[in-house]
Amino acid sequence: MVNIAILGYGTVGSGVAEVIRTNRELISRRIGDEVRIKYVLDLRDFPDDPVQQILTHDFEDIISDDEVQIVAEVMGGVEPAYTFVRRCLEAGKSVATSNKALVAEHGANLLAIAREKKVNFLFEASVGGGIPILRPLHSSLTGDEIDEITGILNGTTNYMMTRMFCEGADYASALREAQDRGYAERSPEADVEGYDACRKIAILASLISGYQVDFEDIYCEGISKITAEDMKHAKAMGMTIKLLAACRKQDGKLSAIVAPCLLGEEHPLFHVNGVFNAVFVHGNMLGDAMFYGSGAGKLPTASAVVGDIVEEARNFGRNLGVTWSPEKITPESKECASRRFFVRMRGEFSEWKERLEKDFGRIDAVKADGVLGEFGFITEEMQEGLYGQIASKYEQEILAMIRMA
Amino acid sequence: MVNIAILGYGTVGSGVAEVIRTNRELISRRIGDEVRIKYVLDLRDFPDDPVQQILTHDFEDIISDDEVQIVAEVMGGVEPAYTFVRRCLEAGKSVATSNKALVAEHGANLLAIAREKKVNFLFEASVGGGIPILRPLHSSLTGDEIDEITGILNGTTNYMMTRMFCEGADYASALREAQDRGYAERSPEADVEGYDACRKIAILASLISGYQVDFEDIYCEGISKITAEDMKHAKAMGMTIKLLAACRKQDGKLSAIVAPCLLGEEHPLFHVNGVFNAVFVHGNMLGDAMFYGSGAGKLPTASAVVGDIVEEARNFGRNLGVTWSPEKITPESKECASRRFFVRMRGEFSEWKERLEKDFGRIDAVKADGVLGEFGFITEEMQEGLYGQIASKYEQEILAMIRMA
Repeated sequence: MVNIAILGYGTVGSGVAEVIRTNRELISRRIGDEVRIKYVLDLRDFPDDPVQQILTHDFEDIISDDEVQIVAEVMGGVEPAYTFVRRCLEAGKSVATSNKALVAEHGANLLAIAREKKVNFLFEASVGGGIPILRPLHSSLTGDEIDEITGILNGTTNYMMTRMFCEGADYASALREAQDRGYAERSPEADVEGYDACRKIAILASLISGYQVDFEDIYCEGISKITAEDMKHAKAMGMTIKLLAACRKQDGKLSAIVAPCLLGEEHPLFHVNGVFNAVFVHGNMLGDAMFYGSGAGKLPTASAVVGDIVEEARNFGRNLGVTWSPEKITPESKECASRRFFVRMRGEFSEWKERLEKDFGRIDAVKADGVLGEFGFITEEMQEGLYGQIASKYEQEILAMIRMA
Repeated sequence: MVNIAILGYGTVGSGVAEVIRTNRELISRRIGDEVRIKYVLDLRDFPDDPVQQILTHDFEDIISDDEVQIVAEVMGGVEPAYTFVRRCLEAGKSVATSNKALVAEHGANLLAIAREKKVNFLFEASVGGGIPILRPLHSSLTGDEIDEITGILNGTTNYMMTRMFCEGADYASALREAQDRGYAERSPEADVEGYDACRKIAILASLISGYQVDFEDIYCEGISKITAEDMKHAKAMGMTIKLLAACRKQDGKLSAIVAPCLLGEEHPLFHVNGVFNAVFVHGNMLGDAMFYGSGAGKLPTASAVVGDIVEEARNFGRNLGVTWSPEKITPESKECASRRFFVRMRGEFSEWKERLEKDFGRIDAVKADGVLGEFGFITEEMQEGLYGQIASKYEQEILAMIRMA
């Protein structure tokens, strides 16, 4: 018998219970032993739910019960999740979590404790919901140097960008629609300002670099300034705009960024629409690969937590070697990254062309149907620092800048 | 020191050597021990290649050397690969292979020997080349009942269908182009008739059902009858045609098929173009997911073999539990599967409409630009057996039938 405790009976927690209930036989067969949820921890009561019988309000019930071998932490937030998870690991219990805030902040530390205690701390559900990405990186793409990960890691903003692309919606109505459908919170900052995606890319950057990458050190720009006119220009170029979270290793240096980017049709992320997420990976031997699926939602996220539970149950007494050093690495400043920039500018292209080409290299004008009094252009590849210096000369005229993926 | 032998120094074999040479340090760190290629087996000599120093023409050198712990079988074909792999496993060596013919025919048996000997037999590269799909199924999607796998599993045919879609090429010129680029063999039957994809879906069907599914029992139809006119009709419907290999579990029954299918733009496989492969997976909790990447090619395939080698090196003395029973299961006849069918028919829709609607249910005509003297329509959902019975009445008029995905 494998005894499990679930910390938190919210959306994901009740999903974990549902996945185990629905697929119990299958899961037990895969583990090679019967699986049982022994406790659910929550401050609330659920008198009409059978969970009430195994509900506890006291974490001490769980930590002190040696029969509990695996704990699913699905409460969210850093505290008390961190304290609970640390104590579980120290007590020799494996932990599976969907909590990106916890992992981004304390992942290295919790992995070190798990290693020392010969248990496991797994967090597949914290990045990309139901999409298997962390275990493939750790167990499958091990012949490769992974030099780039670029993800659509937030379903809310991807839904909004899809509406803006497909229906020409403006930002405000796309947000309203996302809220009406329950995809966006009433206070949507965590999604639309990119904070959610930023924590996820910090975790991926930590895993591929092997060092602690703090999300505070990653330049993070959301989609709240993207307008219907921006999208019209994107379409005029045969492109779209997506909120991308990316990290890259080049010449021994790590860079990472979260920002809305222009993406051409030939890029596999171009076609990832609605609330779906996807993670594009480049390996030096593998080339391009992509993992696609539901980045959020009760059951897909719970499915990933249960996948971690099964892996932990198959590896009692044996640490799987997932690790990153608590030593901190600061990604290169975004000013150093080279790329092309799309710029929207007030005025007539013919009047500005000569001056702009002196500054930005050979450019072509982009005209979007029905957008008057302005034009767009794409710079040659240049460092962002240099772009910023030159762009400052046009401060009065530049209406928007969007990075090219 | 982890000592490896490579059986076969063809495209994939030299790729495995290249991946290990290029990423040796990284790979050794991931294993926690230094990795070394001790032997390469090939009948040929390679006097100008450093491999010559570790080359042997005699398999007995490898099987009798206890230092060799892991063998990469990348010769292809069933014999002598099967004999060599069996002997390696029996001698307590783990094996990684890219050989789909071997796995489709002897997978269950070789997995059983590996289990008994507490070694591992892994074959990630045999399906989808560089795309991680088998280990994610085995180690990540373990909370789910996987009820559908639909793949674009052959790069050659996907390249050809992409040319036919994007450029209106006919079958013969698409094939010629694929041959000129080295994607298709001079004798292209294995690809264009679907035999390659069929072996791969047989492996996937065996893994998700847990039983032996013989590829001979899977209905297999290639793309060699697909015409430019078929593709014009597909485009007129906003769809495309892809060679799909699919298996499905429903009500405890397994079905499997390889056939060209019509696919709408909303399906994630629609956008998988050129030589890329992708595997679409549906789980009862996860919902839709997709894995995308290079399905063939020297380095991507070798990358998957090396990923298996790393996994085996991390698990000496411990079988990972990948298994399917040698007990055979025969997929349901394709006659029992229900779907919609697209039909091209000689004549005028208005003249046939009434009779067709009596037979096939409510239908709409599809007219493709520049295709004269015929029309297309889509039936309502029906079993293929019933479709065939009715269609036989129109034998003189029906020009083509393509299944809807």
